[in-house]
Parts: sequence; structure tokens; C-alpha cells
Amino acid sequence: MNTARISDRLRNDADSIWKKIFNHPFVVELYEGTLPLEKFKFYVLQDYNYLAADMKNLSILSSRAPSVEAMREMVEVAHLEATTEFKGYEEFLKRLGYTIEDAMGIEPTPTSLSYSSFLLATSSLKTFWEGLAATLPCFWTYAEIADFHRDKLKENQNDLYLEWASVYFTEPYLDLIDRMKGLLDNANVEYEKLKEAFIIASKYEYLYWSMAYNMEKWPA
Amino acid sequence: MNTARISDRLRNDADSIWKKIFNHPFVVELYEGTLPLEKFKFYVLQDYNYLAADMKNLSILSSRAPSVEAMREMVEVAHLEATTEFKGYEEFLKRLGYTIEDAMGIEPTPTSLSYSSFLLATSSLKTFWEGLAATLPCFWTYAEIADFHRDKLKENQNDLYLEWASVYFTEPYLDLIDRMKGLLDNANVEYEKLKEAFIIASKYEYLYWSMAYNMEKWPA
Amino acid sequence: MNTARISDRLRNDADSIWKKIFNHPFVVELYEGTLPLEKFKFYVLQDYNYLAADMKNLSILSSRAPSVEAMREMVEVAHLEATTEFKGYEEFLKRLGYTIEDAMGIEPTPTSLSYSSFLLATSSLKTFWEGLAATLPCFWTYAEIADFHRDKLKENQNDLYLEWASVYFTEPYLDLIDRMKGLLDNANVEYEKLKEAFIIASKYEYLYWSMAYNMEKWPA
Amino acid sequence: MNTARISDRLRNDADSIWKKIFNHPFVVELYEGTLPLEKFKFYVLQDYNYLAADMKNLSILSSRAPSVEAMREMVEVAHLEATTEFKGYEEFLKRLGYTIEDAMGIEPTPTSLSYSSFLLATSSLKTFWEGLAATLPCFWTYAEIADFHRDKLKENQNDLYLEWASVYFTEPYLDLIDRMKGLLDNANVEYEKLKEAFIIASKYEYLYWSMAYNMEKWPA
Repeated sequence: MNTARISDRLRNDADSIWKKIFNHPFVVELYEGTLPLEKFKFYVLQDYNYLAADMKNLSILSSRAPSVEAMREMVEVAHLEATTEFKGYEEFLKRLGYTIEDAMGIEPTPTSLSYSSFLLATSSLKTFWEGLAATLPCFWTYAEIADFHRDKLKENQNDLYLEWASVYFTEPYLDLIDRMKGLLDNANVEYEKLKEAFIIASKYEYLYWSMAYNMEKWPA
Repeated sequence: MNTARISDRLRNDADSIWKKIFNHPFVVELYEGTLPLEKFKFYVLQDYNYLAADMKNLSILSSRAPSVEAMREMVEVAHLEATTEFKGYEEFLKRLGYTIEDAMGIEPTPTSLSYSSFLLATSSLKTFWEGLAATLPCFWTYAEIADFHRDKLKENQNDLYLEWASVYFTEPYLDLIDRMKGLLDNANVEYEKLKEAFIIASKYEYLYWSMAYNMEKWPA
Repeated sequence: MNTARISDRLRNDADSIWKKIFNHPFVVELYEGTLPLEKFKFYVLQDYNYLAADMKNLSILSSRAPSVEAMREMVEVAHLEATTEFKGYEEFLKRLGYTIEDAMGIEPTPTSLSYSSFLLATSSLKTFWEGLAATLPCFWTYAEIADFHRDKLKENQNDLYLEWASVYFTEPYLDLIDRMKGLLDNANVEYEKLKEAFIIASKYEYLYWSMAYNMEKWPA
Repeated sequence: MNTARISDRLRNDADSIWKKIFNHPFVVELYEGTLPLEKFKFYVLQDYNYLAADMKNLSILSSRAPSVEAMREMVEVAHLEATTEFKGYEEFLKRLGYTIEDAMGIEPTPTSLSYSSFLLATSSLKTFWEGLAATLPCFWTYAEIADFHRDKLKENQNDLYLEWASVYFTEPYLDLIDRMKGLLDNANVEYEKLKEAFIIASKYEYLYWSMAYNMEKWPA
């Protein structure tokens, strides 16, 4: 019997994908400050739509939590996300010269729509635990990316990118991740199902950075 | 065209039912301090289960909110409820000598189960707006009951009942109601559908007080 | 370990409630042909609304079936219900001089609304298996009622009641029940949860007959 | 005011994408009989998983239908799909030497998972009408593809491909499409929302054929 925490096992099983994410050119150039601004803007507009879907996703998970205690934690997580990262994003959009209406009017790319659809369908239709496992990589990889590239920020001259990155070092953001990991450690479904959701979401994270770097378009 | 706020119209259309609620013997005796303790305890245990279902209900509504702005408001409402009334209830249970496990182990009465099922089914399966209209009377009647019987509390010698009532005068509780009313005022479905949900929920509120006063049992 | 079929265990655990149902005055008088027509009409109009909700309920269960095989069975069950009992009901309404619009315009009684809300909330928000366990008593008790009172029909002179009862002896109707029982026998959740859903639904069945016999009204 | 049938408007607005679909090399080679078998097998295994998700999708739509009449139609559509195309697919898998377990054990490609997630999320979380609009292109394009390439089948020597294509000319399959179009023609949401769902699904159809032709793999 494996006595490791479920969240640690998942993190470990996704390690090769996460390493590719840390070293994705979009991520590296963003933390170095060399990423072309048009790629960054493309990413930010797509990501606002994704975050709006993810807020919905967190509320779906709250509504499907299997106990009063888990429900309370998920309500706290949804509230933390609403009042930190998501709220910060809207102020950040303004700094870039966009209104929220601009952002909401953007057509999602195939990868952005596919990833948020995967999250929403999983959280709506599979078990709460698989939904939670699918939701975690987005939050967790961003914190690990920030930690992995922490030193690069000292050389980074791009105020915009520094400001963008700063949220992923904050207490409330890391607290949100710890709460989700703590919940997931008590999951009572087969580990293989959690792993499948967690790995697929990790792969979508990788595809998401490629989508942004290549400024993806619909082919038809 | 009716230019009154939707929430005001609903309140007005439910007035005869609400008046019966204000004057229900359970409510009157509770605010006077003369309600038999066994009836109160019966009520409190049923109501904890109801509130747990209502937390789920608020999360369902958050997940179905039709705009980013409405979603944010509902996440705030769910968080307010989780951290005020619902949290207070758990401390209150302890004062009565119950654990949360005691409360969760109670079999819901027909009326309690029926009302929470009605809320959950409406919020899950009808429009967001009908779900919101069905959800409002529980919160709103409690605030109006408190205001209606405010003077009685001066004579009320029962510390337990005074403490129970105190939450319905607090800022966060009234804020929660104002936010829900503000949302509902922007509903874009036929008024008749909202009215149906609001009226039925108001009737269930009345039945709920009768259930508690009669310490209802399943007949079969 | 209990090796009996799950459906047999549930049937056995609900036996005392089911006996009360078989001997409920509404049921007895209906099969004897002595039930006052106004009570019967009251029942039929309420039941049409209930059956419409139950069709929705069967589709919800189809959508939540945990395997391709179970989904296919539930689609078959939903189709059987749509093309037999439910379709027959609409023709029956016409014989009584009602249009479908008449029936849909009827305000559900507290018990009718509560029971259908319980079914819809359970099928939407609990496990598929609990939803299925909650759904079965409605179909199954009607078949056992018919069998229990089979002999009374020989003396029953009321063509309307004879026609109404005839559907519960038909092959497709009994096939529908067998399919649901067969599915439920493979449930993989704790028996106690299934029992809770099955017992509550059985109690609502009893309350439903009383509602019809007393021609229930909303008290407020 | 546009008086054309909604389904005709949607078909017209998607015309440029549909033409690309008709002329996609996978489609052309399949109808000519020259498609490499390994590409076909790859497609068939992916498509079985997709069809299983689409059965779920049709049940979700049944459960969310806004009227008794629409619900009945959707139950009929789900039943038609379960007993024709989907059932036929399982027999077809056997002819190719696969068991259903083989097919269910296949890891969905990014495009297959994304498309089915999009359908399930749309049908679960948007209006019934948008869900229906998203669901239609899969069924409808297959019928138009068959009609468009009808003449090619005379020269096609590949029995396997001929058998595969035959279902898309059958009465029950075309009936299913007509029923969905008939429903959609009565949709009461803004046309632009229906168009968005219909166009995105059409684009996913195109991506799906490319996925099969390229035997897509997850990049990370």
C-alpha cells in the first residue's frame, strides 16, 4: 500500500510533463523578460476567459463537495480565487489598455476552449475528486513555475511581467493550493482515476503555453 | 409596464403569506421567549441539515450565474453565508450540547426534506433566476421576522433565543440579502416564473415553522 | 455478507410501508371501483405533472449512468416509459375531458411537488445508484398494487378505473421494472444509502395516496 | 426579420467549413476506398469513445428539454442513436477484431477529448438550445458527407468502408437528424448563440478528421 500523500503521488507521476512546462519557451522568456509583448497580450486575453471558466469550475466543485467540511473548504477556495488572482487579472487587463468587455469578447482558441471544456465537463460529470484533480495543475504549476524561475526575476527588467508573476508568490494564492491539496489527499476513489484527470490537465497546461507562444488560430 | 424593482414586487405579492409567517406561534413564542425548549431543539437540529443543503444550493447558484459579475456576487454570498449564519449555527449547536455529527445524523422531517429538495431541484434544473427567487425567502423572511418582533426581544429573558435571533440583525447577514435582491432585480425571465418560485418557497417557509411547532414525524 | 439481490433486500426492508400502501383507502377503493370520481380526477391531474417530472428524472439518470451498458439500459427504460405509461396517460386525460394544457396548468400540491423535487434532486446530486433506488418504488409499487388487488378487478364495474389499472399488468411496464431492478442489483455504493433513498421514496408514495384521497391544498 | 428556418440559417452560415469537411482527405479517401486501413482503425477506435460520450450528451439534452414535447422528442432521438448508429458501431468493432473493452481502453486523442468535452460542457451548462446546436453538426455532416460522395461508393471496392458508410443513408439515421432540426427550429434564444455553438462544433468536426488522418498523439 502506498502511504504517500495523494497530492505528492500525483505531482511525482506528472513530473516529466511538469519539467517540460517549466522549460517551455513561453514560460522561460516570460520570466526572463524577453517574451515578445504581442505574445504576452495574446496570452493574457485568452487567459482571462479561461479564468472566468475556472471560477465557474470552482463553484461547480463547491456544489458537488461530498461533505459539509469539503464544501466549506471549496467555498473558501472559490472566494480566494475570486478575490485574488481573478480580481488582480482584471486590474492587470486595464494596465494593458483592455476593458473586461474586450477580454470577454475574444474568441477562445481551440486549446483554450478545449481545456476549459475539459475542466467543466470533468467537474460537472465525473466525481468531485476527479474534478478536483483536474483543477489542481493549473494553480499548482503556476506556483512551481514561479518558484523554479525565481532567480530569473532579479534580472527581469520588464515591469509588466514582474507584476504579472508577483501574484504567484503571495500567501493567499499558495494557501488556495494547499487547501485543494489537503482536500485531495482525502479522496476516496481509485488513484488511477485521479491520476488520469491530473495528467490530462497537466498536458493541457503544456498545450496552453504552446497555444500562446504560437498565437494559435482555428484551422477551419 | 411595471417599473418597481422585481424584489419589491415579489415581496408585495407574497405579503399575505409573510404576514402569516410573522404571526406563526413558533415565531411569536420564540421571540417572546416562551417557546418550549424541546420544540426549539427539534427546530435547531432540523435547521442545521437544511442550512447544509442551502450552502450546497448557493454553490449551485454560483456555478450557474449567467455572467462573470453575477458569479462573483454569488461566490460572495456563499462565502458570507458560510462564514456567518452557518458557522454561527455550529457554535450554537455546541451550546445546546450537540455535536455536528449529532445534527447530521438526524433524519430530516418530510417538510424539511421537501423544502430543501425543492430548492436544490429548482437551482439545479430551472433558470438561475428562478433558483435565486426560490432561495431568497428563507434569508429575507428571517430578517423581516427579526425586525417585526424587534420590540419583543426587550422582554425576552431566554438567553438562548436572544443569541439565536441576534445574527438576523447583523450587517453581513443583511448585506447578503441585499446582494441577492440586487441580483434578482436584473433577472431576465418572465416575472410570473420568478413569482411562482418565490411564492412556493414562502409557503414552504410557513410549513417549516408548522413542522417545527408540531415536531412533525413521517406518517408511514 | 448478504448475498441476496439488492432489489430483494430493499423490497424486504420497505415491506411494512408497502403493506400500508396496498391497504390505503385510495388504492383499495380504486381497485374496488368505489372511489369517488372527484378524488380520482384530482389524482390523475396531479399525477400527470408528476409523470412529466419523472420522465425528466429518467433522462437525468440516463445521463449519469456509470457505464455504457447502464446508459443503454436507462435510455431503454426512459423510452419504454415515454411510449407506454406516459403516452397512455395522455390519452387517458382526453377520455376524462382534459387537455394536456389543462393538466400542465394545474398547481402541484405540496406532496406532489415535494416528491418530484426529492426525485429530481436525488437523481441530479447524489450517486446514480441512489437516484435509481429513489426512482424504483413509484414503478414497482404500482405493479405490486395491481397484483395484490388483481381479484378485486373482477368485481370492479368502473370502466375508467379498469382501463387505468390495465397498464400495470402489461409486458412493457413490467419489463421496465425488471430492467431497473437488474441495474440496481449491480450498484456499488453502501447498501444503507440505497436503502435510505428507497425507503424515503416509499414513504412519499404513501403520502401521495393520502394527498390524493384528501385532495390536499397548500395551507398558506 | 429573418424568416428562414433556424436550421437552414445555421447550415448556410457553416457552409465554408462544411465544404472543407467534405473535401478533407480522410473523408475523400474513405469514400473512394483508398484510405489506409491503419488510419481507418485509428479513427474507428477513437470514434467509439466519442459516440459513447455523445450518447451521454443526448441524455443530458433529454433531461434539460424545456417542454414535455421536446423531452419526448429527445428521448426518441437518444433511443434512435442507441439502437442504430451506436449499436451498429459495436458490431462493426467486432468485424475489425476489437472488443468493446479494447475500444473503451483507448486513450482519447487531444482532439477527441476536446470535442466531446466541448459537447458535454455545452449541453450541461449552456441552454438546451445551444447544446442542441452543438450536437447537430456531428450527425448532420455525416449525412451530407454520405450524400456528397454517394457516387464514389459505386467504385469503392472496400467492403469495410462500404459497410461503415451504409448507416448514414438509412431511414432511422436521417429521421434522427430531422427530429433534431425540427426541435432547433423552435429555439427561443438569440440566433448568435446558436450560431456560435454550431460553428464551433463544425470546426471541431474538421479538426476531428485531421486528427484521424494524422493519427494524432499528445505532444507532452
